[in-house]
Amino acid sequence: MASKFFSERNLRFLLYEVFDIETLTQYDLYKEYDAKTFDMVLKAAMELAQGLLWPIFQEMDQNPPEFVGDRIKVHPSVRKFLEECGQGGWIGSRMPYEWGGQQLPQMIAHGCEFVFAAANYSASVYPGLTSGAAHLILSFGNEEMKKTYLPKMLSGKWQGTMALTEPEAGSSLSDITTEAEPTDKGYYKIRGQKIFISAGDHDAVENVVHLLLAKIKGAPAGVKGISLFVVPKRRSDEKGQLVDNDVVTSGIFHKLGYRGSPIVQLSLGDNNNCRGYLVGEPHQGLLQMFQMMNEARIGVGIGATAIASAAYYAALDYSKKRLQGRRLSTKDPAVPQVPIIEHPDVKRMLLFQRSVVEGALSLLMQCGKYADLATVLIGEEKEKNELLLDLLTPVAKTYPSEMGQLAVSQGLQCLGGSGYCDDYPLEQHYRDMRIHPIHEGTTGIHGLDLLGRKVMMKGGKAFKLYLEEVEKTLYEAEKFEPLQSYTHKLKDSLALLQKVTSYLMGVREKGNPEIFLADATLYLELFGIICIAWQWIVQATVVVKALRNSPGETEANFYNGKLFAFRYFFEYELPKIEGLAKRLMNSDGLTVDIKPEYFSD
Amino acid sequence: MASKFFSERNLRFLLYEVFDIETLTQYDLYKEYDAKTFDMVLKAAMELAQGLLWPIFQEMDQNPPEFVGDRIKVHPSVRKFLEECGQGGWIGSRMPYEWGGQQLPQMIAHGCEFVFAAANYSASVYPGLTSGAAHLILSFGNEEMKKTYLPKMLSGKWQGTMALTEPEAGSSLSDITTEAEPTDKGYYKIRGQKIFISAGDHDAVENVVHLLLAKIKGAPAGVKGISLFVVPKRRSDEKGQLVDNDVVTSGIFHKLGYRGSPIVQLSLGDNNNCRGYLVGEPHQGLLQMFQMMNEARIGVGIGATAIASAAYYAALDYSKKRLQGRRLSTKDPAVPQVPIIEHPDVKRMLLFQRSVVEGALSLLMQCGKYADLATVLIGEEKEKNELLLDLLTPVAKTYPSEMGQLAVSQGLQCLGGSGYCDDYPLEQHYRDMRIHPIHEGTTGIHGLDLLGRKVMMKGGKAFKLYLEEVEKTLYEAEKFEPLQSYTHKLKDSLALLQKVTSYLMGVREKGNPEIFLADATLYLELFGIICIAWQWIVQATVVVKALRNSPGETEANFYNGKLFAFRYFFEYELPKIEGLAKRLMNSDGLTVDIKPEYFSD
Repeated sequence: MASKFFSERNLRFLLYEVFDIETLTQYDLYKEYDAKTFDMVLKAAMELAQGLLWPIFQEMDQNPPEFVGDRIKVHPSVRKFLEECGQGGWIGSRMPYEWGGQQLPQMIAHGCEFVFAAANYSASVYPGLTSGAAHLILSFGNEEMKKTYLPKMLSGKWQGTMALTEPEAGSSLSDITTEAEPTDKGYYKIRGQKIFISAGDHDAVENVVHLLLAKIKGAPAGVKGISLFVVPKRRSDEKGQLVDNDVVTSGIFHKLGYRGSPIVQLSLGDNNNCRGYLVGEPHQGLLQMFQMMNEARIGVGIGATAIASAAYYAALDYSKKRLQGRRLSTKDPAVPQVPIIEHPDVKRMLLFQRSVVEGALSLLMQCGKYADLATVLIGEEKEKNELLLDLLTPVAKTYPSEMGQLAVSQGLQCLGGSGYCDDYPLEQHYRDMRIHPIHEGTTGIHGLDLLGRKVMMKGGKAFKLYLEEVEKTLYEAEKFEPLQSYTHKLKDSLALLQKVTSYLMGVREKGNPEIFLADATLYLELFGIICIAWQWIVQATVVVKALRNSPGETEANFYNGKLFAFRYFFEYELPKIEGLAKRLMNSDGLTVDIKPEYFSD
Repeated sequence: MASKFFSERNLRFLLYEVFDIETLTQYDLYKEYDAKTFDMVLKAAMELAQGLLWPIFQEMDQNPPEFVGDRIKVHPSVRKFLEECGQGGWIGSRMPYEWGGQQLPQMIAHGCEFVFAAANYSASVYPGLTSGAAHLILSFGNEEMKKTYLPKMLSGKWQGTMALTEPEAGSSLSDITTEAEPTDKGYYKIRGQKIFISAGDHDAVENVVHLLLAKIKGAPAGVKGISLFVVPKRRSDEKGQLVDNDVVTSGIFHKLGYRGSPIVQLSLGDNNNCRGYLVGEPHQGLLQMFQMMNEARIGVGIGATAIASAAYYAALDYSKKRLQGRRLSTKDPAVPQVPIIEHPDVKRMLLFQRSVVEGALSLLMQCGKYADLATVLIGEEKEKNELLLDLLTPVAKTYPSEMGQLAVSQGLQCLGGSGYCDDYPLEQHYRDMRIHPIHEGTTGIHGLDLLGRKVMMKGGKAFKLYLEEVEKTLYEAEKFEPLQSYTHKLKDSLALLQKVTSYLMGVREKGNPEIFLADATLYLELFGIICIAWQWIVQATVVVKALRNSPGETEANFYNGKLFAFRYFFEYELPKIEGLAKRLMNSDGLTVDIKPEYFSD
């Protein structure tokens, strides 16, 4: 197996050269850090990934979780990893010092999450979920909750989950039926079914803490009646002993990939003895849960990018070693075969992968930066960064998920028949990747979110801020002659995006939401491509400056490779917006009008 | 599991209404047939598929071939299926009566192959390979060979294979090293290794007959030194008993999908006792093998379309039954949830699948018709049909393989989380499908074939004939008002294809083949989309006529659905050529220029 699954050089490039993470240390929250301590954190993450996660990448896939007795048995290394995560402070990386967290900027946390996921996506999900669940308790829970759960969760002893989906309520959360019956003892009695719960039960931890959505008896219908509860698998009795909380694992799902992590079905309160503890106010559950969902969405983007990264390096490694065929300019069979990386079509496939991986990671870091600035700034500046993050979240979730699939597929293709066989990791990456356009909101849902909500929110304020951000980048980039033809292209693309958006707002005003949103998925695709083109200009500006300083050979190779990936994106990917825009400017209602019975045969 | 995996109505539509297969019965070769007998053949294929293949679709995947002792053990139903195929005449469906064949037109054979593959792709491969191998012996073998092999193969008792790939020679066949040493006893001694041999060994047959490429000792280097041999796993000794022929199965590959069929590694002549029998003349091996390869390429197109068909019907079935969410025009949570087929985005995904499946199948039938006409016609008309088939073979192989992947992926997406789990067949279809852009020539190889060879062959004659074919279709379609805006679009697209092609020919004349062919894969993609748009106009013309005759409700639903799929293709898929053309008209040599070391980090 190739030994490389991500580029440390690229990670440093993004953190230090592009997004200048050191500037964050001027703020109180991050004042304990500097470049050196950030580096120590990164180094530690890489060691953990390389030493523990990567070696069991295939093993965890081949030995998926099993339902043994009433418990889910997972790979023994999961326990070790969670312990390490607890000791190393990874679960609480973004949490405040007072709760034992590391109080790290989001950008560094994203970087470490990326490294873990690239080494072993399934494994990386366990601490990631606990972290998100703990953050939710921190944000909305009461002191007692925090004291009960946070230390156990942050130490990796207890697993956190998000328990939303039910058999009849997936994309449509308003239809959940899990019920919470108030008692006079400060807790609620929970009754219901949850499905597709990641890490919803396993034997690598003492306890599982579900952050669960349910409806309090008599609550309003729909999303307005959803409340958030903490529902532990085991609760403390009077003596402080852990006893079962009537949360029964009733099934495990057998999945295409992402097999190292158990996805389970839960039955809650079958014996009328499941206690749930309300988080925050009643009926505010969905709003609160959005914090975890949004974090998880960025997490999916990171996971998808990470898998595409590992697939890229495996394909690259193979392409450098595999001898096959001759250059088209030399057909003489007496000439030795060349490594396939000499073939333009293979280089095209590799450039595609690199442009997706490094473009997507750049966007995720950009989102991390917005999150960090939203945390440390106040007033209008805070709001600005929050809005930008909100707007870009569906893009940062979906672009890596959708394009990452194609990138992994091209990686597999580089290996030909070997890519299809399990002697190489590509087939696993291909399977692991496919979950991403589904979980944490399908691509279709995110299309609706972007076009139907985000673009218009606060009178289009976020969208305007976004345009300003891109224009700021263009202004900087234009100063460099080698970038000018590309800034023109991005300007044209941005104009096209505005034109399409205005057109769609016009459609919206006509009052038929189905026609307005029929192609929201395509709009998201268009938006995503332009967004990644923007991130490539952001990167290219740094690269052009760096190349002026006559770097050494290794560095020059890195920067020149960046420039080619940048050019590739503009020459091969950006043109795809033409066809998308053409369709988006046609509101013929094709997919609205076709009747279900026309699909009858 | 959904009970439907293909549309009988659509198959009949293509065979009888669009391609008018009955006109073939005017030729001597097919004079025994009429609509009724064709129907009996189709019916029998459907029964076999429904009764035997579909029920073991998942079972064969979950119980893949095993290497037991020195033999490959396959699912017990494979033997039954091959016996049925022998008795039913399926293996010899296109072979002449004198050899016990059914002498059926290619179009019907394609239809039956499609039905088998839609029910169970892995199973369908066994008789398909035997059929191609037998056809090769029929075309180039001597009488003795035919007598020895054809009856056993056509009866399903012996398996046929194509044995080309070696560890160091996949895409580059000129580098095979398997050696054939002449003896004075009429046979050659074979020594070498072959890998990735589909159905290369298994216990459902008495014997395996490899149609194998090797180089006769002292042969010229490269492809000019390749000869074709029949190398049976077991040969007849003097007493007519089958004895081992020193062909040893040395390994089995574990694959992402397509698991019901064993793909093996073979060692030939380790004990200097492997006999091979030359087929035809020495050094003509590759030319002869192209017959089987071209048939196999069309077969891959059919297999890919078939898998996409099964995935589409599974997604459709789910979409009709699964209740989730409400129409965007009704947000009231008190209103019951609707089947997801009511959501425009789901209908879009279904239309995409249908437009790919039915567009691709139409192209494959078109190719079948060219093959049939090339068989029955003579002189210039024969050549014309041969050239058209030659030109379109890389397209008919690649479009279904590449777009079929995306179609299956959208099918999986319709099911959300359930699509990712093995309770539904989508995840298997997704895995099975991924082999198609790889086997029988990768997509990259077919791009080179189309642009570097087919478009230019005989001074561009095939390409000109193709343009005439499309223009003929346009001429017919223009007569119908509802089609006119679409014929304009196709005309523009055809003009764009010509423009791109001329541009590339100009690049070619500058003498750098790497720059000329750098984006051959994109050219193939562009060509493929336009080709399928053509096939949709071919179909739409028939549909518009049929709707004028006021068909009953069921029929009207079928035709109206066709029209929507047709419109979908023109509105959503055809615009993709804009971006492709933009890139193809730029010969900046981006992927030629990037140095391998730029990928270093």
